[in-house]
Amino acid sequence: MYPNNFYSPEVQGPYEMIGIGRLELEHGGVIENCELAVATRGELNQAKDNAILIPTWFSGTHQAWIDSYIGAGHALDPDKYFIVIVNQIGNGLSTSPHNTDDESIAMSKFPFVTIGDDVVAQERLLREHFGITELFAVVGGSMGAQQTYEWAVRFNEKVKRAAPIAGTAQNTPHDYLFTQVLLDAITSDPGFNGGEYASHEDVAEGLKRHARVWAIMGLSTEWWKQECWRGLDLESRDQALTHFLEPTFGAMDPNALLVMGRKWQHGDVARFGGDDLATALGRITAKVFVMPISEDMFFPVRDCAAEADLIPGAELRVIDDIAGHFGLFSFEPSYMEQVDRHLGELFAS
Amino acid sequence: MYPNNFYSPEVQGPYEMIGIGRLELEHGGVIENCELAVATRGELNQAKDNAILIPTWFSGTHQAWIDSYIGAGHALDPDKYFIVIVNQIGNGLSTSPHNTDDESIAMSKFPFVTIGDDVVAQERLLREHFGITELFAVVGGSMGAQQTYEWAVRFNEKVKRAAPIAGTAQNTPHDYLFTQVLLDAITSDPGFNGGEYASHEDVAEGLKRHARVWAIMGLSTEWWKQECWRGLDLESRDQALTHFLEPTFGAMDPNALLVMGRKWQHGDVARFGGDDLATALGRITAKVFVMPISEDMFFPVRDCAAEADLIPGAELRVIDDIAGHFGLFSFEPSYMEQVDRHLGELFAS
Repeated sequence: MYPNNFYSPEVQGPYEMIGIGRLELEHGGVIENCELAVATRGELNQAKDNAILIPTWFSGTHQAWIDSYIGAGHALDPDKYFIVIVNQIGNGLSTSPHNTDDESIAMSKFPFVTIGDDVVAQERLLREHFGITELFAVVGGSMGAQQTYEWAVRFNEKVKRAAPIAGTAQNTPHDYLFTQVLLDAITSDPGFNGGEYASHEDVAEGLKRHARVWAIMGLSTEWWKQECWRGLDLESRDQALTHFLEPTFGAMDPNALLVMGRKWQHGDVARFGGDDLATALGRITAKVFVMPISEDMFFPVRDCAAEADLIPGAELRVIDDIAGHFGLFSFEPSYMEQVDRHLGELFAS
Repeated sequence: MYPNNFYSPEVQGPYEMIGIGRLELEHGGVIENCELAVATRGELNQAKDNAILIPTWFSGTHQAWIDSYIGAGHALDPDKYFIVIVNQIGNGLSTSPHNTDDESIAMSKFPFVTIGDDVVAQERLLREHFGITELFAVVGGSMGAQQTYEWAVRFNEKVKRAAPIAGTAQNTPHDYLFTQVLLDAITSDPGFNGGEYASHEDVAEGLKRHARVWAIMGLSTEWWKQECWRGLDLESRDQALTHFLEPTFGAMDPNALLVMGRKWQHGDVARFGGDDLATALGRITAKVFVMPISEDMFFPVRDCAAEADLIPGAELRVIDDIAGHFGLFSFEPSYMEQVDRHLGELFAS
């Protein structure tokens, strides 16, 4: 346990820590007192049928959704829906290696958590804490899309609509290797010390290399070529690293990134279909809009389209965005316009 | 200086070391006794107008060309052409950090070499050693394409035909960052010791990480998804790393990779056009076939096509190949069939 100010309400905006009790994990191990960091917008209606769940992406928190996706005028409109954003386990806000006071799972001892563990935890939170047993929709980007798929397959009776953005139901081989490169960048730093560092600043070099890998995969070749960093008030390619990507990832907790990265590597709903992806995706009863981003370097449209083909009644809605995967941050105004249009149609269906 | 068996005729096939004397470098520094490792096929005709130059790519040697591209039945036919493959400076065979007996440039003291330095050295080699002042063609892949462009712009009077495969005339911002990730993987290994290691084996971990970065950028998402490693007699995704990519790059010299990587980062013919790429490419008088590979992750077709548009009379000939950049290794039979067809047309023009 060590203090990391990045994971605080001052930086991330307000959230509530909600205990869901003992969580036994899919691959063994247990979190005795699992707490989820939750932010909500809007009101749950009497029928309790207007809830939208948003799980978070790798390295992200509820904040990105509050900042860009939710509000009057957006499809995710708090006047209509009760929107529940749940930070994924190990993301630095929910129970995580650096913030738990349970010594048995602190730092390097944190157990292997899966996408399935998160979804089980979220289902319990919604049911026991909010009394929600049916979701109007699940919406998530990247690792949030993995959780969205897990929800739609695992709890298929409970999910009416699903919008996985820039992510897949079954992690691809390339994605596995890409994530490994991200993790290698961190664990290879001698300061990482097998996960037993005194502060994330001991791992500054590894976090910097991690950020640089994101630079070439999170953003597209064309984003760099067209110098789209100018739109972020940055003055050069190098400043896009030193003033944006490196400090952003440099503030994070290395063990948190590892927990999330390993979770990402193993995301796969096929286990609900006897290891057959088509069988698993065939279980889905929700109306699904599959929403890849056109310039995504590691969740290419064709990978998402192939999964859409296996989901009964799913529609492929490609978001055209030059940033690639980091389009999720809504750099371009046209990004959110497209997301709102697609989600609006999905919610009206 | 240390012995590295990877850079030997036993591993790379025979080559000749040809001294070209003192080479003053574009950005300062000098190689007093620059030696180029050269392999040739075919005979120079009386008119000395049938010479084809092939410069090498990052981490590569003449061997890949001998193995896959040259021979009876190929466009690069030694019965018709005098084919000269010149290993780039610093590639481990030509004068390089680990093999030079000039202590002033050994290991970490090796100077910054540019694509221009290579091309100047090659021009001198061809003229002084072989008496060649005109090239029937220059053909190169990746960093070899950079050298091909440098030839066609810098020595525009001397080059009749040019085939840059899977590379650009002006390095892109994304490519610069990608190369930096490759270099970071090596230099971050404590065993690298600022370039003063006793053996490449001291840098085994860094070289392994370097190989893993290549895994996600040198090969396409689709190559991994379709498990094309089966075509290389490998049994799993992990074996593609442990039995192929990691040992391949693990045998190389870290400083050699750094010299080549930095050279790659700064490839840019625009300096022959007052920093204007269009002006520089407008100088080209050779007939040019611009040949990107369809699935290339970091030299995408559009980047190459944009340059083709600036070259008088150039034709864009896209090579359709699932491997992406490493398609250059001719994994798929259809790759070489396409290369031969395009080069055959170029040579007939």
